[in-house]
Amino acid sequence: MARIAVDAMGGDFAPRAPIAGALLALGALPPHHQIELIGQTAVIESELDALLRGELAELAHVRDRITIVEAPDVIEMSDKPAAALRRKPNSSMVVGVKRVAEGEAQGFVSAGSTGAQMAISLMVLRLHAGITRPAIGAIFPSAKQPVLVLDVGANVDCAPEELVQFARIGTVYAKALLGRDNPAIGLLSIGEEAEKGNLAVKEAHQRLLGAGLNFLGNVEGRDLPKGACDRGLIDVVVCDGFTGNILLKFYESIGPFLIGMVSKVGQLDPRQVMGSLKQFDVDEYGGSPLLGVRGVSVISHGKSSPKAIKNAISVAVRAWESGMTDEIGRRLAESVPEAPAAPAAPVTGPAK
Amino acid sequence: MARIAVDAMGGDFAPRAPIAGALLALGALPPHHQIELIGQTAVIESELDALLRGELAELAHVRDRITIVEAPDVIEMSDKPAAALRRKPNSSMVVGVKRVAEGEAQGFVSAGSTGAQMAISLMVLRLHAGITRPAIGAIFPSAKQPVLVLDVGANVDCAPEELVQFARIGTVYAKALLGRDNPAIGLLSIGEEAEKGNLAVKEAHQRLLGAGLNFLGNVEGRDLPKGACDRGLIDVVVCDGFTGNILLKFYESIGPFLIGMVSKVGQLDPRQVMGSLKQFDVDEYGGSPLLGVRGVSVISHGKSSPKAIKNAISVAVRAWESGMTDEIGRRLAESVPEAPAAPAAPVTGPAK
Repeated sequence: MARIAVDAMGGDFAPRAPIAGALLALGALPPHHQIELIGQTAVIESELDALLRGELAELAHVRDRITIVEAPDVIEMSDKPAAALRRKPNSSMVVGVKRVAEGEAQGFVSAGSTGAQMAISLMVLRLHAGITRPAIGAIFPSAKQPVLVLDVGANVDCAPEELVQFARIGTVYAKALLGRDNPAIGLLSIGEEAEKGNLAVKEAHQRLLGAGLNFLGNVEGRDLPKGACDRGLIDVVVCDGFTGNILLKFYESIGPFLIGMVSKVGQLDPRQVMGSLKQFDVDEYGGSPLLGVRGVSVISHGKSSPKAIKNAISVAVRAWESGMTDEIGRRLAESVPEAPAAPAAPVTGPAK
Repeated sequence: MARIAVDAMGGDFAPRAPIAGALLALGALPPHHQIELIGQTAVIESELDALLRGELAELAHVRDRITIVEAPDVIEMSDKPAAALRRKPNSSMVVGVKRVAEGEAQGFVSAGSTGAQMAISLMVLRLHAGITRPAIGAIFPSAKQPVLVLDVGANVDCAPEELVQFARIGTVYAKALLGRDNPAIGLLSIGEEAEKGNLAVKEAHQRLLGAGLNFLGNVEGRDLPKGACDRGLIDVVVCDGFTGNILLKFYESIGPFLIGMVSKVGQLDPRQVMGSLKQFDVDEYGGSPLLGVRGVSVISHGKSSPKAIKNAISVAVRAWESGMTDEIGRRLAESVPEAPAAPAAPVTGPAK
C-alpha cells in the first residue's frame, strides 16, 4: 500500500488541477493506494465537494481514500527557493516533503516552484552518499522508444564525475520506471569520437568507459529524435543541466510549432493531430522524480493538467514500488567517486 | 564584380553537386559575377561537359564565366584538420582559400570537411585583431523571422568574453546578410533572469549589458522556435559552440521526424509538406561564412545539393558585397576586450 502526498496548492491551476488529478489517480490505481492532499483544509474541502458534485461525480467512491493534511502557507513562484524551508515551514510543500521524510507518505507530488521543491527535498530528504547534487530527468519522445535525458536543470556547471553519477542514476531509473533491461547510456556531445566535446564531456567519456555501465559512447543532437545512434537504441542520455534544460524547453516548444505548421499546410485540425501523437503529450509522464535524494519527490510542470497530476502520482507509486530510491543509493555506494582516471578499454560488469 | 572560388572536390556529392551548383549560381547571379572551380582539371572538365550536354543544357551560356584552377589533391574526411594545410598544400581547399587570401577571388565555398576548412581558413586568412577564435553561425527557422545562432561548433569551451565577441560578430552578420536594423541579441540560458545560467553565461550577461549592443538579455530554449521572447523579436542568439552544435543537429533532425509523423496522421505526402515549408529547407541558406577571419570562406553541409551550393555561392557574393568581413574587423577593434567588468545598467550606443 502506498500513500502519496499531493501538494494541493502548487501549480498554475491549483487547487483544482492537483485535487482533480488526485481523484483521477485513485480511480485508476488499485484500491489499496491512498492520497493525502496537503494544503488549506477549507479550500481543499470546498474544491473536492465541487468536483465530486460536478464533473467528477463518478469518482465519489474514492473520496474515503483521501485524507487532508493542513498546511496554511503557500510557496509562491516569487519566493526564493533556498529560503522557502526556513520562511514557510508550514507551507504545503514543506509539510508534504516532511510526510515522506517521516515515513508517513511514500512519495510527494507537486506542480509548484521547481526550485523550491528541489531545495526543500534536498534539505529535508537529503542526498544519497556518494553524490554531490540531485538531478532531474525528463522523458523525450523519439521515433523509437522514449529516451530519459538527465540532467535537465538541477545542475548547470557539471564536473565529469557528476556526469558519471547521472549515468548511474539514469541506469536505475530506466530499469525501474521505463522497464529497460541493461539500459544503453549515451553521452551527449558534438561528435561520436571520444575526443569530441567540451572539457567535462571528454573527461566523463573516459571515466564512463570504466564505470561498468552499458555505455554506448557519445551521441549527438541528431540522435535524440531518432532514439538511436549507429551503435544501437539509446535508453538514457547524459548531459549537464544547462544543455539539457535548453534542449528540453526547445523540444517542448518546437513540437507544437511544427505540428501547427504542418497542420496548416495539410488543412488539418492541430488539436486532432496532437491527440493522435500521444508521445508528444507532455501530460503523458506527468512528472519526474528528483533523482539522488532519499525519498520520492516528483516534480511536475507548473502548467500541469489534472491528467498530468494523475500520471505524476502514478510515477510516484511506481518509483516507490520499484524501490528505485534505495537502488540508486546502492549503485552510488558501489561506485568509487575518487577513483583515478578510468582505463581506456571498456570494463564489463559493475565493479562490486 | 565578384569571382567566387568553389571547391569542386568537397562534399559527399562532389564533383557533381558543387559543379552543378556553380552553373545554377551563374544562371541566377548578374552577368558580371564569375566562378573559379578548384580541383582536378580533367575531372571538372568532364563533369561540366556532361552537365551542359545533359540536365543543365540551358545553362551553356554561363560556361565562359567559369575558369578552372588546377588542384591535384583532395582533403578527405579522414584527414586530420590541423595537418591538412601542411600535408596537402595542393588540395582544392588550400588552393581555394589561398585564392581569397591573395585577392584573386572574393570568396571561397566548400562542402568538404568543416574542420579542415576552419583550420585552413584560420591559418591562411588569419583572424581579425581582438578575437581569439572564429565562429560559425547557423540560421534557425522560427515562427517569425529566421534567427542567427552562433557559435554552432567552432568553439566548445567559451570564455565570457568570447560570448561577447559572438554578439558583436552576430550583430554585423545580421545587418549585412539578413538585413536587420539594430539586431536584437539574446544570450541563450536556462531562465530570463540575469543570475540564471552557467558561470560563463552569467559573466557574459553582465559584460553584454555594457557592450553597446542591442542586448535583450537571456533567452530560453523555448524562445528559439518562436523567434521571440517576452521582450520582443530575436535576431541573434549567442551560445557556446557545444550547446549550439547540439541544438542545431537536434533541430535538423527533429524537423523531418515531426513532419513525417504529422504527415502520417493526416495521410499527407511528407515530401509535399516539406516542399511547402520552405523555411525548413536546409538548402535555402546553403552555407555560413566562417566568422572572424579576414576573408570570405563559406562552410556548406557535407550533404549539400546543387541548390545548396548555389545558395552558398550567393551567401559568399553577399558577404563580399556587404563588406561584412571588414565591418566585423572594425567592430571588434572598437571593443576593448580587456575592459573591467561592465556596469550593471545598459549603456546606449557603441562605446567608440
